[in-house]
Amino acid sequence: MKRLSGSNLHLALVHYPVVDKNGKVIAAALTNLDLHDIARAVITYGVQSFYVVTPLKDQQDLAEKLIGHWTNGAGALYNPVRREALAQIRLEDSLEGVLTSIAKSLQGNERPITIATSAKKRPGDIAFKAVKEMLTDGAPCVLILGTAWGLAEELFEKADYVLAPIKGPTDYNHLSVRSAASIILDRLFGERDGEGK
Amino acid sequence: MKRLSGSNLHLALVHYPVVDKNGKVIAAALTNLDLHDIARAVITYGVQSFYVVTPLKDQQDLAEKLIGHWTNGAGALYNPVRREALAQIRLEDSLEGVLTSIAKSLQGNERPITIATSAKKRPGDIAFKAVKEMLTDGAPCVLILGTAWGLAEELFEKADYVLAPIKGPTDYNHLSVRSAASIILDRLFGERDGEGK
Repeated sequence: MKRLSGSNLHLALVHYPVVDKNGKVIAAALTNLDLHDIARAVITYGVQSFYVVTPLKDQQDLAEKLIGHWTNGAGALYNPVRREALAQIRLEDSLEGVLTSIAKSLQGNERPITIATSAKKRPGDIAFKAVKEMLTDGAPCVLILGTAWGLAEELFEKADYVLAPIKGPTDYNHLSVRSAASIILDRLFGERDGEGK
Repeated sequence: MKRLSGSNLHLALVHYPVVDKNGKVIAAALTNLDLHDIARAVITYGVQSFYVVTPLKDQQDLAEKLIGHWTNGAGALYNPVRREALAQIRLEDSLEGVLTSIAKSLQGNERPITIATSAKKRPGDIAFKAVKEMLTDGAPCVLILGTAWGLAEELFEKADYVLAPIKGPTDYNHLSVRSAASIILDRLFGERDGEGK
């Protein structure tokens, strides 16, 4: 059996199109700590690449400035482990750009399987186990996470799959995207004592 | 068999005594998103209480201002789900204060079992499974998380147990405390498809 590893998985953090608390489609602003926390989780779990998606030029400039500070600037000297994490971030205008970029990096220009995520249960969503199986089979997959109040409907419609929401023992389902990304990667690749994977 | 639930678990986010990157004992500054993210994870997984520990008066004032904004101020109206999460936060000067407060809230003034956390492997650390067993047995436990570069040595010495670090398939062990708290709670209480708990 092939070993499960993060190397077939890519992660995209989407700032457009996402929805606001009223369900209106918006472009969300970047949050510094989303980039820090998710980059650190991505490297912990051996995920192949981390794309930050925003079509807004000023937000791309902001992301570049932040990444530059921690990879070439004073931050790199101060904290090399953050440098290692943030150096992995790639910026794209759109999810389509992410898919093209991943396809280019793969032999034969194969497009990755797209897996959208949601805090709400959606009809036909797939279990974490199903994603593990795809990854173990060697299929390149991209996990799509939304900022603000989550991905816009059109991204769910375009995605190949939607992952089942993270569920605890309560009905509260308002984790931060930073927490959600960390938990999803741990569920997929975490080494749990005596429980297998 | 008793059912595993977060209701026996308490969480303490410690800002003093913690260490800086050179191992020197410091009092760390509060990070707004630590409070937001961990409060949201705490409520998701049904954890009994969330203590923020800092002896610094200005930092306590800052925390109260932040909590007030989201529980009574403009934020409460804007985002009721954050209100629900942040309303749970309690401030204490020291870990000792946390233990006294928990003991008071329990019948018979029982002190909770203290479980320190670390990003590094430590001799004699216990598995997640062992914590689940204590909680299933009904023992009140407090999980202690450090900010900055982690808890000071004296807290490890005083704690009843140290939890094994979160491990992914790589050797990188620099998750944010927000990610670590979320992952630990998910490992303890997350409802995973077809894997049991």
